[in-house]
Amino acid sequence: MGDYEHIRSERTDEVITITMARPKRRNSLSEEHLAELLAAFREAGETDAAGIVLAGEGPVFSAGHDFGDVAARDHAGVRDLLALCTELMDAVQSAPQVVLARVHGLATAAGCQLVGACDLAVAAESAGFALPGGKGGWFCHTPAVPVARNIGRKRLMEMALTGDVVDAATALDWGLVNRVVPDAELDDAVAELLGRATRGSRASKALGKQTLYAQLGRPERDAYAIALEVMAAASQTPAAAEGMAAFLEKRQPDWSRG
Amino acid sequence: MGDYEHIRSERTDEVITITMARPKRRNSLSEEHLAELLAAFREAGETDAAGIVLAGEGPVFSAGHDFGDVAARDHAGVRDLLALCTELMDAVQSAPQVVLARVHGLATAAGCQLVGACDLAVAAESAGFALPGGKGGWFCHTPAVPVARNIGRKRLMEMALTGDVVDAATALDWGLVNRVVPDAELDDAVAELLGRATRGSRASKALGKQTLYAQLGRPERDAYAIALEVMAAASQTPAAAEGMAAFLEKRQPDWSRG
Amino acid sequence: MGDYEHIRSERTDEVITITMARPKRRNSLSEEHLAELLAAFREAGETDAAGIVLAGEGPVFSAGHDFGDVAARDHAGVRDLLALCTELMDAVQSAPQVVLARVHGLATAAGCQLVGACDLAVAAESAGFALPGGKGGWFCHTPAVPVARNIGRKRLMEMALTGDVVDAATALDWGLVNRVVPDAELDDAVAELLGRATRGSRASKALGKQTLYAQLGRPERDAYAIALEVMAAASQTPAAAEGMAAFLEKRQPDWSRG
Repeated sequence: MGDYEHIRSERTDEVITITMARPKRRNSLSEEHLAELLAAFREAGETDAAGIVLAGEGPVFSAGHDFGDVAARDHAGVRDLLALCTELMDAVQSAPQVVLARVHGLATAAGCQLVGACDLAVAAESAGFALPGGKGGWFCHTPAVPVARNIGRKRLMEMALTGDVVDAATALDWGLVNRVVPDAELDDAVAELLGRATRGSRASKALGKQTLYAQLGRPERDAYAIALEVMAAASQTPAAAEGMAAFLEKRQPDWSRG
Repeated sequence: MGDYEHIRSERTDEVITITMARPKRRNSLSEEHLAELLAAFREAGETDAAGIVLAGEGPVFSAGHDFGDVAARDHAGVRDLLALCTELMDAVQSAPQVVLARVHGLATAAGCQLVGACDLAVAAESAGFALPGGKGGWFCHTPAVPVARNIGRKRLMEMALTGDVVDAATALDWGLVNRVVPDAELDDAVAELLGRATRGSRASKALGKQTLYAQLGRPERDAYAIALEVMAAASQTPAAAEGMAAFLEKRQPDWSRG
Repeated sequence: MGDYEHIRSERTDEVITITMARPKRRNSLSEEHLAELLAAFREAGETDAAGIVLAGEGPVFSAGHDFGDVAARDHAGVRDLLALCTELMDAVQSAPQVVLARVHGLATAAGCQLVGACDLAVAAESAGFALPGGKGGWFCHTPAVPVARNIGRKRLMEMALTGDVVDAATALDWGLVNRVVPDAELDDAVAELLGRATRGSRASKALGKQTLYAQLGRPERDAYAIALEVMAAASQTPAAAEGMAAFLEKRQPDWSRG
């Protein structure tokens, strides 16, 4: 994959792993770092890979925005930075691949937002999640957006108002992550869940995840209006035809046909 | 109740049980099957029954759409089928009765959607829930609509992307069902929960559940705008008058008065 | 704080405790009681206190609306009462302070609604939660609005349709409250959680909680549109400047500066 300064993007078979690699800066999200992540997600989205893993190098997953980068900016400058960050979250959800956050260590502020925005998340037992902005003077307004869409309201309020770290077991109980495993088993668990999530028709799953994000958070009838039209159209795709034919003919589907 | 070919609709005292009865087709939802279910829910809705149980006969609850019926259809034909299916989901939620899904065995795709759409659900320990469409070439776009409104987002993504079966205990933990009991106790548990859910004023509960579906999924102030107007108007109904009078007079309410 | 007949509003250091004090009427919410609560929340909101605790005196937290007050009203009269009640819920969420419900005993109907509407809730093991209106003839339409935004749909339906009491442990599991503790430890747990929730920059948290309520329940992109603009503007506040400067200078922030 492309050459980057702050991240690595590497493909192994069907999976592209995008690694935040500014460990000395605790993988904080400077403008350059965000821009590289956005470019890497867009680049990965154009490949035929089946899945994307978002990982972090060093002691933490990501500490969120880089205050050294933020503090000197005026209103317009911060707005540009946050718009870029929001574009990244959108790119994660728009990618045709299944995107899985591999979380070890702390994921705080915009780092926690990335976990909320990914389709799936697997955490090591050592992982922790926090929205510390309120305590720190600059509330985690945008990080709270995807976190709120994964966990209940009282729990969101507790995270956002106390700023305290939620441990991995609690994050699992609340639904912020899909799995928690001993640290030594993290890569195996990531591969296992991503393997199951990327089986079958990729075209179908790409359209599926994109449509899910389109219908979530809307009144149920509005959601049906979206999902019904997409599903009717999708019935005519090669993937649907092959899947149904294989089922009716009691054979394994051949996804090179769809 | 009416005569049907693919289903049975039977009344016992205050409860109408609608049973999907195409066990050889795993209660799959062909157009005729959907049309009969819709007719049965509408018929039941016009009775004075207090509750409706949706059940399945044979080894599974329902396998979802019947690919034999879908595969031959063009875009417009599938759209008609999905519109009919969505009309059924709407009829379940519009029915003045409390609707409870009695789930034994697998509930997959549109079968899982039915569980999500019912007001309440009781599952046997043997039950399982899945959204296998993504894996199979035709993503479960519409089934995901009500499932997403019962469980958290990461869990929805896991179901929709892996297509794997979620067991009954997990479905309970995630909030997709209200109770899980040993298979031999399923009918007792259904009767027990439905009995409690249908006590008291039926007119009040009918308006209540219909208004809940109207306000859910909306911004909180929009939801209040709906709930406030309905509740103010409902205060003048015979049911409310009788309930409040009985409370103030310290007597049992007589619901034949409201 | 101000003089009230049905409630007490008392300040101790940084916390204002508003206590529903009509124990003989089970803290039911007559028009006068609601009006005093609304006045007390507005009064508290104008102080520099960091947190507000909502508590109840006597055997229950609150029994909800006072049927003695409701039963005699016509449609317009009930509508006025419900509009006042909704105004109170809005005042709880608009208050710049963190608002925590201290729940002992039963919280039913509009009493349960208050728990749902508060930012945080700590319950004694003896607490219970119920939406009994459907059973009683006047469905809990408005109480269900904030309760639905804290717990899953099937669980909401069970509460609203059965009217039965949900115990404290279940309310914790479902996310309606943040903590459950033995009754004797209730005040300590309230102080502990509120202490953590009110640390740091109050200005930042006030804007934070108000913005959370503005973005919750909206499609994700709409939520980002709100959160991004607020967060960009908030970056220029004294609180954000002080927080980031302290972080970069590796010193404790001085919130008198922000």
